[in-house]
Amino acid sequence: MQQIDKLAVSAIRATCIDVVNKAKSGHPGMALGSAPIMYTLFSNHLVANPKEPMWFNRDRFVLSAGHASSLLYTMLHLCGYEVSLDDLKSFRQLGSLTPGHPEFRHTKGVDATSGPLGQGIAQAVGMAMAERAVAHQYPQGKELCSHYTYVLCGDGCLQEGLSQEAISLAGHHKLNKLILFYDSNAVTLDGSLDLSFSENVKGRFKASNWNVLEVEDGNDIDAINEAISKAKTSKSKPTLIIVHTVIGYGSEKQGTCKVHGNPLGEEDGQKAKAFYGYNYPAFEIPQEVYDHFKNTFAKRGEAAYKEYQKTLASYKEKHSGAFKKFERAVNGDVSAYLKGEPKFDPDNNDSTRVSSGKALNELYNKVPFLMGGSADVAGSVMTKITDGVNFSPKTPKGRNVNWGIREFEMAAAQNGMLLHGGLKTYVGAFLVFVDYMKAAVRMAALSKLPGIYLLSHDSLAVGEDGPTHQPIEQLAMLRSIPNVNVIRPCDARETYAAWKVALESKETPTALILSRQNLPLLASKYKEVEKGAYIISKESKRLDATIVATGSEVSLAVEAQKELLARGVDVRVVSMPSTYLFDKQDKQYRESVLGVSKDKVFAVEMLSSFGWYKYADHVMGIDTFGTSAPAKDAIKAYDFTAEHLVKFVLSNL
Amino acid sequence: MQQIDKLAVSAIRATCIDVVNKAKSGHPGMALGSAPIMYTLFSNHLVANPKEPMWFNRDRFVLSAGHASSLLYTMLHLCGYEVSLDDLKSFRQLGSLTPGHPEFRHTKGVDATSGPLGQGIAQAVGMAMAERAVAHQYPQGKELCSHYTYVLCGDGCLQEGLSQEAISLAGHHKLNKLILFYDSNAVTLDGSLDLSFSENVKGRFKASNWNVLEVEDGNDIDAINEAISKAKTSKSKPTLIIVHTVIGYGSEKQGTCKVHGNPLGEEDGQKAKAFYGYNYPAFEIPQEVYDHFKNTFAKRGEAAYKEYQKTLASYKEKHSGAFKKFERAVNGDVSAYLKGEPKFDPDNNDSTRVSSGKALNELYNKVPFLMGGSADVAGSVMTKITDGVNFSPKTPKGRNVNWGIREFEMAAAQNGMLLHGGLKTYVGAFLVFVDYMKAAVRMAALSKLPGIYLLSHDSLAVGEDGPTHQPIEQLAMLRSIPNVNVIRPCDARETYAAWKVALESKETPTALILSRQNLPLLASKYKEVEKGAYIISKESKRLDATIVATGSEVSLAVEAQKELLARGVDVRVVSMPSTYLFDKQDKQYRESVLGVSKDKVFAVEMLSSFGWYKYADHVMGIDTFGTSAPAKDAIKAYDFTAEHLVKFVLSNL
Repeated sequence: MQQIDKLAVSAIRATCIDVVNKAKSGHPGMALGSAPIMYTLFSNHLVANPKEPMWFNRDRFVLSAGHASSLLYTMLHLCGYEVSLDDLKSFRQLGSLTPGHPEFRHTKGVDATSGPLGQGIAQAVGMAMAERAVAHQYPQGKELCSHYTYVLCGDGCLQEGLSQEAISLAGHHKLNKLILFYDSNAVTLDGSLDLSFSENVKGRFKASNWNVLEVEDGNDIDAINEAISKAKTSKSKPTLIIVHTVIGYGSEKQGTCKVHGNPLGEEDGQKAKAFYGYNYPAFEIPQEVYDHFKNTFAKRGEAAYKEYQKTLASYKEKHSGAFKKFERAVNGDVSAYLKGEPKFDPDNNDSTRVSSGKALNELYNKVPFLMGGSADVAGSVMTKITDGVNFSPKTPKGRNVNWGIREFEMAAAQNGMLLHGGLKTYVGAFLVFVDYMKAAVRMAALSKLPGIYLLSHDSLAVGEDGPTHQPIEQLAMLRSIPNVNVIRPCDARETYAAWKVALESKETPTALILSRQNLPLLASKYKEVEKGAYIISKESKRLDATIVATGSEVSLAVEAQKELLARGVDVRVVSMPSTYLFDKQDKQYRESVLGVSKDKVFAVEMLSSFGWYKYADHVMGIDTFGTSAPAKDAIKAYDFTAEHLVKFVLSNL
Repeated sequence: MQQIDKLAVSAIRATCIDVVNKAKSGHPGMALGSAPIMYTLFSNHLVANPKEPMWFNRDRFVLSAGHASSLLYTMLHLCGYEVSLDDLKSFRQLGSLTPGHPEFRHTKGVDATSGPLGQGIAQAVGMAMAERAVAHQYPQGKELCSHYTYVLCGDGCLQEGLSQEAISLAGHHKLNKLILFYDSNAVTLDGSLDLSFSENVKGRFKASNWNVLEVEDGNDIDAINEAISKAKTSKSKPTLIIVHTVIGYGSEKQGTCKVHGNPLGEEDGQKAKAFYGYNYPAFEIPQEVYDHFKNTFAKRGEAAYKEYQKTLASYKEKHSGAFKKFERAVNGDVSAYLKGEPKFDPDNNDSTRVSSGKALNELYNKVPFLMGGSADVAGSVMTKITDGVNFSPKTPKGRNVNWGIREFEMAAAQNGMLLHGGLKTYVGAFLVFVDYMKAAVRMAALSKLPGIYLLSHDSLAVGEDGPTHQPIEQLAMLRSIPNVNVIRPCDARETYAAWKVALESKETPTALILSRQNLPLLASKYKEVEKGAYIISKESKRLDATIVATGSEVSLAVEAQKELLARGVDVRVVSMPSTYLFDKQDKQYRESVLGVSKDKVFAVEMLSSFGWYKYADHVMGIDTFGTSAPAKDAIKAYDFTAEHLVKFVLSNL
């Protein structure tokens, strides 16, 4: 170990202590233990440019153990990113660049939002998949995209089941450029790890086709360095580097859970610094340390960045068409592929899952960087691509992903792909099983990632599979997440329009809610879908009431409308595929669409009524679980008929 | 293999074919592959009484691969449970006893609702924990509780990350009486398993401290039988029995995904039966097969049942006190422990998480069968039990569970414990991470299991940890699930009352939503909590408007009420800890509490407004993600102050 190694690692640790002490909040434990790992990685390996933090071909780094954020911010500061000493001093304060957990799009140099355990690893797997995919979707694509993805996790991430889905998938895809550090300190928040965990982690990773390396002493920079160098040479496996560390290294409470989530405080902090042999005042970092990172990390990254710019210029000359596509891909720009309004046969009565499958197949052929798949329900959610090539180690240019029965990882890896960039993505599952991926959908929304969720079998019409498979509250769940656009189209036309909205989104994930059953083509309006709601069937003369419906219930409402008119009640039918988009319209538009006061608005949706009272005083929904029966019997048993809707309106008007 | 073995297995397979064909819906693939496993288990090992299907000390069987329900129903029919041939013929029809996926409380002999993959294994781990716990909570408790827990799963369950949490926990706890069959047929819905999966399953289970056995030929009854016998002798490890089967065995499409989820149809069904050498008409089963199960399964089970009744009688004599407790435990009867109304110091300003911790500690000492713990946040969610003993292999009578960072398994295993019976349970996590367990909460609600979720850090007041840790939409998510009682108490008194409601619940899970920050004791009413809402602070003279609040916002509302009165607006404050319970009250009560029409009701909750418009036209909530800052700064930044609430009321009245 060089003298500078010792000094720099001590400076990192001391700064973490200061940062957390100043904030009187934070998690110093893992930060102190992991400091040598981060030091070695950033000094000797990670290729990134602090002046161009979003540079496409940089190595990615994900702090899966997001609570060790003080360590990441300290590294970013030392490495020359836009994180100043003042930013470090305002750690966890309102509006600062250094929030409690790392936030993508908020702090430059942060490649992923993290904190919810397991999701960092899960996202990193998506990044590594994206790296390989992009590298193979272009002629000589490795000139455009060729980098490593590093992740740092602790015990928590590995206890989460999500981590198993992630490592299983990574091993299956032989993601050799994925390198995971496991800071193994044998302590969790509640105490010693062995209270709840006794897995042979090495064995588990090996069983998932990983290369496993181990560093016995977490302070041994040379050993860490050697392990990283070795990991980078792996040809067909991702690598786990287990590093045995001491939580809260240097603190009086080192090695215990007491140092997990509490500041060391002034006294213990001083003692720890003395233990490191580090004699600088709080927040004072010797120039040699800055110089070290300038001469290693920054120099390496800036040189690589310049080299890449040259490569890009020559690539543009050699492959102008491919380069144009690449630029669009990196910018997520699909405008060139989404022109014109599709035409539909008036007799079209495809289920919206089938319409979505057709739209997808068309778009897949048009948009060369559209990539996705489903969680083993391709044939049901209609994500099968005619003549599509599977993404696999043997066919890395394939864009059809077989995610396996791993909904959570699928959604989290999609986040990783979008964090990486260069792809438009979609994932598919039955609507009811979006429950399994809720936390990843939230993460997409929070990180402003425009993932697309194709969620079919969207009501009681699931039929025979019964209540475990029939969504009831799932739409309410999705709609309640900030920044999630839930679109439930009523026919083929609205489905195509929904796909357009989804693909054009830059910062909002979109869930397409699709029927299992056939639905007639209505007088729907392609361009109105982006407004969230519109009048799909006008009242005859006098407006007595308005029925708001979505998806399969729009045709039901139109049917009821006729019957109601025959009975002397003149209603309007509004299709409201997206409450999210509707809420974004101005008041005048919203009032003009609904046309009547709330007490004369009837909402109808064959799922939970929860949330609908914002728009309607009368809601026809289902607030109990479903039942196993052929779809039409189930629907009838729950009174989702035009006849009942007529009664419902008449009795409440 | 005996002649009867062949005949019976063929009869099972033929019946599954008939059942699915008749329904024109179902999943015959795994049913046909797994038939010999089920045959062997039920003939030779499983101890249960078809006449007393809920007998407490029966072996438990969980069909984790719930889509193979036709197989389970066929077994129940053959074994003498109340599943008739007519019931089999009405498979998946409206109101039948044989729904698409097995449903607990619906079909006698079904020990767990299953279908959502991974959750069967996860629940079974909870059952095996409960078996051990109950056996050790009583003197000579093994006389009361001593049985095996069997589970059957397929590839899908093992791909779900939840399965890793479950097997990791089971291995950690050395649950030697848990036996998991893995029907390994190498095919999933979308095709060959190797499209998405290449784990060494054996290695993975061994790394999680399991005993692993393997049966090469899934039709080899003797080998299966031997493996089960061997598994039952395991002293310190759960056992995985990998059985290599052929999906859709006997069908023309055997070994392919085409037979996964589609009926064979008449022709292929006939061919399969011919292949088995089985010559009976549809739904005709030879008497020998019935006799076989009568002489094996039923005889063994009935004898064991009788023996157990004798044991119980003598146990009652020897340990009358323990027996009384046991009876209460089995009936989930806590009435003896919940008498009287607790008293509180008027200066009490405990956070509701602290109040919950105090209530829990008192209850833990009173209710001897109350068991639970948290997902590594005991010190934060306040589930630490003073002098509590950890449930561990060395201290199996301990009732404090260290679930590890495995929220999903924690919630699913709680379901398993409640399915098993003999325990009252609770689990704890941060509210925001209920996202990870959503699917298990739904399963509790669907299965009518009264699990208790202690969810603290219930708003922006989480503070520095920031948006990844601040719940926004989680309450809406929980409230939207049918049959979930969400209670957000406003002070210590309401917290104790909420605990009472939760413990007394028999068929409804309860989520207690707890504050991180201190809250003053208000003029709350212990007995009114069970009505969901009540007037906590009356208007002065004239009722101008009503503010409805929950949890930490009730004190805010009371503060605003004073200021509003000073400004000439006379409002009432309603505490609404539970919308679920409030909705159950009659209209008169509901109207009397609110006192005004909806346009004069203001709801205030420091989370998403989603769902509140059912009660109020004006909602002060937060429909964006939170921010990292000290709690008071974050709250101020989002305008959750009494001052702002006053303005909000004045500007909307």
